[in-house]
Amino acid sequence: MPELRKDPITEGWVIISTERARRPSDFLRDSLPAAPSGRFCPFCPGNESKTPPEVLAYRNGSGANQPGWSLRVIPNKFPVLGIEGELDREGEGIFDKMQGIGAHEVVVETSEHALSMTALPEKAIEQVLWAFRARVLDLKNDRRLRYVLLFKNQGEAAGATLEHTHSQLIALPVVPIRVLEEMHGARHYYQMKERCVFCDLIRQESKHAGRVVTETDRFIVLEPYAARFPFETWILPKQHRSHYEEIDGAEVENLAWVLRSTLRRIEKVLERPPYNFLIHTAPPQETANPYYHWHIEVIPKLTRVAGFEWGTGFYINPTPPEESAQFLRDAGLG
Amino acid sequence: MPELRKDPITEGWVIISTERARRPSDFLRDSLPAAPSGRFCPFCPGNESKTPPEVLAYRNGSGANQPGWSLRVIPNKFPVLGIEGELDREGEGIFDKMQGIGAHEVVVETSEHALSMTALPEKAIEQVLWAFRARVLDLKNDRRLRYVLLFKNQGEAAGATLEHTHSQLIALPVVPIRVLEEMHGARHYYQMKERCVFCDLIRQESKHAGRVVTETDRFIVLEPYAARFPFETWILPKQHRSHYEEIDGAEVENLAWVLRSTLRRIEKVLERPPYNFLIHTAPPQETANPYYHWHIEVIPKLTRVAGFEWGTGFYINPTPPEESAQFLRDAGLG
Repeated sequence: MPELRKDPITEGWVIISTERARRPSDFLRDSLPAAPSGRFCPFCPGNESKTPPEVLAYRNGSGANQPGWSLRVIPNKFPVLGIEGELDREGEGIFDKMQGIGAHEVVVETSEHALSMTALPEKAIEQVLWAFRARVLDLKNDRRLRYVLLFKNQGEAAGATLEHTHSQLIALPVVPIRVLEEMHGARHYYQMKERCVFCDLIRQESKHAGRVVTETDRFIVLEPYAARFPFETWILPKQHRSHYEEIDGAEVENLAWVLRSTLRRIEKVLERPPYNFLIHTAPPQETANPYYHWHIEVIPKLTRVAGFEWGTGFYINPTPPEESAQFLRDAGLG
Repeated sequence: MPELRKDPITEGWVIISTERARRPSDFLRDSLPAAPSGRFCPFCPGNESKTPPEVLAYRNGSGANQPGWSLRVIPNKFPVLGIEGELDREGEGIFDKMQGIGAHEVVVETSEHALSMTALPEKAIEQVLWAFRARVLDLKNDRRLRYVLLFKNQGEAAGATLEHTHSQLIALPVVPIRVLEEMHGARHYYQMKERCVFCDLIRQESKHAGRVVTETDRFIVLEPYAARFPFETWILPKQHRSHYEEIDGAEVENLAWVLRSTLRRIEKVLERPPYNFLIHTAPPQETANPYYHWHIEVIPKLTRVAGFEWGTGFYINPTPPEESAQFLRDAGLG
């Protein structure tokens, strides 16, 4: 069973994989070429038996774990956390730990062997967004779980190990430290001003446009003022909501277009770079609040993060967000 | 002039390089082969005129910026921060910024074209440790500067751009967020227990030994309980001191051995991996305190940090620290 351990100084939690420990010889030093098309793909229809049984699927009348689906959510075959057992919180002298309880699932976004989410029709991306919502609503019933991370690793350098386009979900018994920091900062701002800092940010950026990539009735896409990484891009809903799972049908429809067009701009300007995106949302078991505002953060992997940065949380960004916004605006949707 | 910008939500600061902005085509996607030996090296003796004039050198009677030195500290030719000017703090609506004032220096650790600090004799490493101290004491006199980061990027994948062994220093007008978090956590612990959390950690780990790599009269080398990365290694002085620059002669002498032997173990077990090390110390302009404890963090670059991790501050470590400690203990010093 993996273990969750708390840093006694910063109080951040870490998953320690005690079972399938990696030895020195297991670490790949160099990047590998992209998997050759035609390699066996466990995510393609007909190979359902090669994955753990699905927890959710959108399908056309066919039976569970059979072909005939358009989207499938399955437990990760090599999960970083296990769903069975109790948390068993305990101390170890000055240290604190608990069992690595949680869920680790894969959202197979399409039955086609597409290599990127941008190759999907908008309806397929809508399905992904609905699947995210459905899984959060389901996992929220498990009182051991305090957070659900929804994210995508695109490309090997961003951590993807299979090329068939997919997203992931990790449900955790703790709230990650960066989410806590965002919640803390946003609450503090609200206490001072009685306004949501994200709503203020949307109003200010929308007026000046220098860092805005695109804007619709329901969403704004922008390069954040203090971007940590070149071409870091945020997608924010204009309607204030603390929780992603409160998204409505009109928003899902619009977000499918906004997300696809944003990823297409990034792929066009940066020539299909590896990237990650991540949904930041309030913890599902907390009630709606007026200060936190869910959003998506997209980070292309362009620079090596050096010692300076991991050791300090202090980033050096060689590309001003005003310039990256200009490049992305000019890209069009091709 | 680069700019420092504050994230309005998390309150972390970022350097935005507004002058030498990198365009999409500037980003290297693939790793390059190590620089061929014999390529022109600006850090070798005889090439002093190819670097900015030195700010510190240990030399044998020869003139400044001439050969005859054994260690040289020079301003970085492409600094991320500039030393001239005022901070000019100002708001931009809800945002906060200041000019990118600071220092960015390179410590050329030896006149030999050595590729790693582990190739140096202990006396040369002592010189590096003294040079770190001397630069902190000098930069502390500049009241605009609130922090001095001392670090090393070893190997291209860890951010090094020249192979001649060197360390770096960045002096900042703000304290980095991870240092603030450590200080905050350590202060909180002290308020509860009136003991330093690092001193407690040293006492507990020294007794159990499972995560200890090596221990001398003056230092302990260990794999931290909640290690974020495989083979993350900390070097802590046993004598409580909040500030690195308070190090004494006996400690410098011992640390030179401890640091070299630790890096040698890592190079042996992991076959010369890229790595970073970083000195965490209290802000130089603050007085000594009983709760913070300076230390060195060494992180080999073995895994790709995926979307999950940068987006949350929540790490998954596939190698338990007890096992990495065992590998490093068994390595011997070769």
